[in-house]
Amino acid sequence: MKHSKIPLSQTVVTLCKVHNIKHIVISPGSRNAPLTIGFTHDDFFNCYSIVDERCAAFFALGIAQQIQEPVAVVCTSGSALLNYYPAVAEAYYSKIPLVVLSADRPKHLIDVGDGQTIKQKNVYGEHVHYSANLKLDLKDEPRNSSESELPIFKSIENKLERFLGFQKDIQSYNESEIHDALTIATMKYGPVHINIPFDEPLYDIVEELSVNPQLFKVQAIQERIDEFEIKSLLDVWHSAKRKMILVGVLSPDSVEEKWLQELADDDSILVFTETTSNLHHPDFFPGIDKIIAPIEELELKALQPDILLTFGGLVVSKKIKAFLRKYKPEHHWHVDLYGANDTFFCLDKHIRLSINTFLGAFLPLVTHHTKSEYKSTWLEVRQKRRKMHEAYLKTIPFSDFTAFNVLLKSLPKQSQLQVGNSSAIRYTQLFQIRKDIEVFCNRGTSGIDGSTSTAIGAAVVTKERTTFITGDLSFIYDSNALWNNYIPKNFRIIVINNEGGGIFRILPGHKDSDNFDTFFETKHKLSAKQLCEMYGFEYVKANDALSLDNALETFYGNSKRPKLLEVFTPSTKNDEILLDYFKFIK
Amino acid sequence: MKHSKIPLSQTVVTLCKVHNIKHIVISPGSRNAPLTIGFTHDDFFNCYSIVDERCAAFFALGIAQQIQEPVAVVCTSGSALLNYYPAVAEAYYSKIPLVVLSADRPKHLIDVGDGQTIKQKNVYGEHVHYSANLKLDLKDEPRNSSESELPIFKSIENKLERFLGFQKDIQSYNESEIHDALTIATMKYGPVHINIPFDEPLYDIVEELSVNPQLFKVQAIQERIDEFEIKSLLDVWHSAKRKMILVGVLSPDSVEEKWLQELADDDSILVFTETTSNLHHPDFFPGIDKIIAPIEELELKALQPDILLTFGGLVVSKKIKAFLRKYKPEHHWHVDLYGANDTFFCLDKHIRLSINTFLGAFLPLVTHHTKSEYKSTWLEVRQKRRKMHEAYLKTIPFSDFTAFNVLLKSLPKQSQLQVGNSSAIRYTQLFQIRKDIEVFCNRGTSGIDGSTSTAIGAAVVTKERTTFITGDLSFIYDSNALWNNYIPKNFRIIVINNEGGGIFRILPGHKDSDNFDTFFETKHKLSAKQLCEMYGFEYVKANDALSLDNALETFYGNSKRPKLLEVFTPSTKNDEILLDYFKFIK
Repeated sequence: MKHSKIPLSQTVVTLCKVHNIKHIVISPGSRNAPLTIGFTHDDFFNCYSIVDERCAAFFALGIAQQIQEPVAVVCTSGSALLNYYPAVAEAYYSKIPLVVLSADRPKHLIDVGDGQTIKQKNVYGEHVHYSANLKLDLKDEPRNSSESELPIFKSIENKLERFLGFQKDIQSYNESEIHDALTIATMKYGPVHINIPFDEPLYDIVEELSVNPQLFKVQAIQERIDEFEIKSLLDVWHSAKRKMILVGVLSPDSVEEKWLQELADDDSILVFTETTSNLHHPDFFPGIDKIIAPIEELELKALQPDILLTFGGLVVSKKIKAFLRKYKPEHHWHVDLYGANDTFFCLDKHIRLSINTFLGAFLPLVTHHTKSEYKSTWLEVRQKRRKMHEAYLKTIPFSDFTAFNVLLKSLPKQSQLQVGNSSAIRYTQLFQIRKDIEVFCNRGTSGIDGSTSTAIGAAVVTKERTTFITGDLSFIYDSNALWNNYIPKNFRIIVINNEGGGIFRILPGHKDSDNFDTFFETKHKLSAKQLCEMYGFEYVKANDALSLDNALETFYGNSKRPKLLEVFTPSTKNDEILLDYFKFIK
Repeated sequence: MKHSKIPLSQTVVTLCKVHNIKHIVISPGSRNAPLTIGFTHDDFFNCYSIVDERCAAFFALGIAQQIQEPVAVVCTSGSALLNYYPAVAEAYYSKIPLVVLSADRPKHLIDVGDGQTIKQKNVYGEHVHYSANLKLDLKDEPRNSSESELPIFKSIENKLERFLGFQKDIQSYNESEIHDALTIATMKYGPVHINIPFDEPLYDIVEELSVNPQLFKVQAIQERIDEFEIKSLLDVWHSAKRKMILVGVLSPDSVEEKWLQELADDDSILVFTETTSNLHHPDFFPGIDKIIAPIEELELKALQPDILLTFGGLVVSKKIKAFLRKYKPEHHWHVDLYGANDTFFCLDKHIRLSINTFLGAFLPLVTHHTKSEYKSTWLEVRQKRRKMHEAYLKTIPFSDFTAFNVLLKSLPKQSQLQVGNSSAIRYTQLFQIRKDIEVFCNRGTSGIDGSTSTAIGAAVVTKERTTFITGDLSFIYDSNALWNNYIPKNFRIIVINNEGGGIFRILPGHKDSDNFDTFFETKHKLSAKQLCEMYGFEYVKANDALSLDNALETFYGNSKRPKLLEVFTPSTKNDEILLDYFKFIK
């Protein structure tokens, strides 16, 4: 087999294999040639070539989002790795293991005026869980990361070994750093950065490895149930009359059905599920904004829980955040192996368990309430809102609102829905999504910068067919996402084109001035048509209810090329229709 | 006049005006609404709206490159400011004053699970000269930047004032931080970051300012000629027999003609000028690679200088770097007000003066050599190479090489040339550029990520008409640059489309394998045609000498829209033609 002649490249590639990193997204470059040679000559790896590093990293993020294992991106030196940063931050806040492998110049060529050279060391600051700065020789300064940053789970023996190794030779040092970084990517479930200096010549190839990296044991996280803690939680739980559960971003099938049923059977529990939670039960409350937005200030008090249990990732609904910050529960517990946000400024417990482990230890000991009116009251509200929702749809003209209604209903069975940020995800949250649809959205940083690339990455590895719904600004922002040779034929994009940032019309700005059009809504007359021609997508468009129905009749049929449906909606009506909606369903 | 109601926004806008920052590039967002309101309602500012922050920052960089004054970019919270990072790094290494104004959430909403929120503080690490982290209230932790980072030129009085101000109220603290950042942008001539937290409501407008920021005196840098130092430099200079001057990136007209003539008149001085230096004299040596590449190892010794004087920014030519690192001069002096790179590992003097000040103090005291053969020998070599260069052009078919020859000759009189990175700038360096052409290229990080945006930014403010020459990968990478409402009608883009990263065919990799095509050359069949349709450019193409000549006949004529000329060259021939060139001209 062919390998780069450079031992450090061999070491990185070998250890990625040991850590079972199978997907490698490579952007072209010369400094990273040793890594490109190493990864692409080993069939163990699925390698992808993507030129724009911003797209490459979001594409990798989409793969990692689906397989829930680390995925690596590989780039050359200089500003290349800065273009990864938006995806690195998304990975950090969305808890997705993304491994950045950046090639660098040798230390003596940094900041002396060489081309394509920046200060790459630790460039992602606190947005990665570990920065491994590999070395070419021992004269480089000692390791930058302090010992306290090392994973607590590493045995003393390993540390000692590593320390002795560092004394012994640079090879052991680098092996240990790589191992730490890759272990932390899995254990902390987030992004890590390995910066790798290479000296010329960069393109030499050999048939045999010249290194034999020590194969540290790859550790798995150990969950420990603290029975005393569970007991004390039970006391609080049982004394609470009104319990609210709020679920953020979760992968499909994250929670066992029996626990969902048990939660649904308790009349003192309201389960609010975000669309991105992928949790479904007839007694749960999806469409949070639909419930909360129309509630009069006086009634909100009746919704205030005594205790709030949260799990999953970040929450889209601004309304539930505002509500819970104002009507704080006495207790807020968050269940998560990795971390907990004090989103409502009343977090008093971070339960460091996976949600199934926690529910499995907790629920069997719970005495359920069957006589509380907490749930039944709000189920009635929910019922009324759903009726009014349907009624409203009959009163309004073709718009973003009606388009989302039709589009979400027409999604193929057992398929995956990727949603763009800003308006797209907020509209999606207002509709009931079928249980057979898996929903994903980049809610870590909620940026519009990489949603298309993420959706394409996800589509490449998921078994389900994937539809991506996005707004026009977000789509054009990430148009380089289509510069990609791996897009499945059955991948579908739907662009809701309201000729600008429609969301700004909903915000309390000063509309209908040149200033607003230019600097807030950023009005345009662009279309996705030419991008489809450029990148080989079949293009379909619709601009009213009839043409949308027509388009959808064949949109999901088999095709030789991926397809894009552009839905033009009237920009000046959308905002009123949405604002009136919340008044109407009251 | 209308202002944001928020005092901090008023303060930032007012101080930007005091510091004479006239160009403001705004990306849409809600958190930055207070700044958008403030800047766009004051006619003092030229405001631009650009959605993709990566492009927005490079566009601003292009403006700053031309006007040589700070230009500000304004974005919302979250990952937005990460997309500025490639341009920030370019600004840092190219010494261009770019001011990042990032809106942020208040401190208590960071890392608690709010949307569009990351750790924005100090996010650009060492790639900015100052990070001002403004505050909403005094409870926030004290200023992050250590006192030692403060500009040394600030008076003790100012420091004391600021310290007392900090004790007094948050307003003084913020004013002082803003003032420091904006002063440093000018004094250190590079990027700075001001992070600005805003609390809701964000859209309120008032007619009167509620703040009256203290107007610190805006300082100018003071140059001090040290006569003792000049004397000691003269001793070294006079004792040297062979003197080499190497000039990197410089704005046009940076050096007075009389000093250029004086340097040219000295027979012991070789002046090597890069294309990006914008320096011209019949006795200078442009086309560095053309001189050095064909020299036999044995002859190189004859070129080795005793003393090397450098000025200007980074150097493109890898060959001169390799040569001077191997054949080190005894002395290397770099003249620059701001900093000096030890590019050849023999820098022994950083002369902290502007080049005109230095030459004005130094040259009148120099006794010039008129009997050295150093220059005349190499002028003969240069003459021979130029002849062979012309001869070679007659032997080769249509290719990147012949296209650049024709394109560079046909540039309009008194116009500006912006060049993309990688192949584009390297080819450009092989040809003699007319004196009436001003040449610019992003050589700070030498990235392909923002050259088009930079060129457009430059074109918007320069008086000359602008032509931008770029490769296909670089052009598609920054295709969002065309998503821009400010492009002048006489702006011209020329894309040399060789269907991939042609430069990789020149490097010593293993060509003509699937692996090479996919992961190094990243072959494609894309064209700029559809992007031209999308963004309203007139599109012209050429694929041989005749069609190129035809296209150029009308390409620079008046037009209602900007134009793009796409020149298709044969990807598999270009590399041989370039490699053979260096053998031929020997």
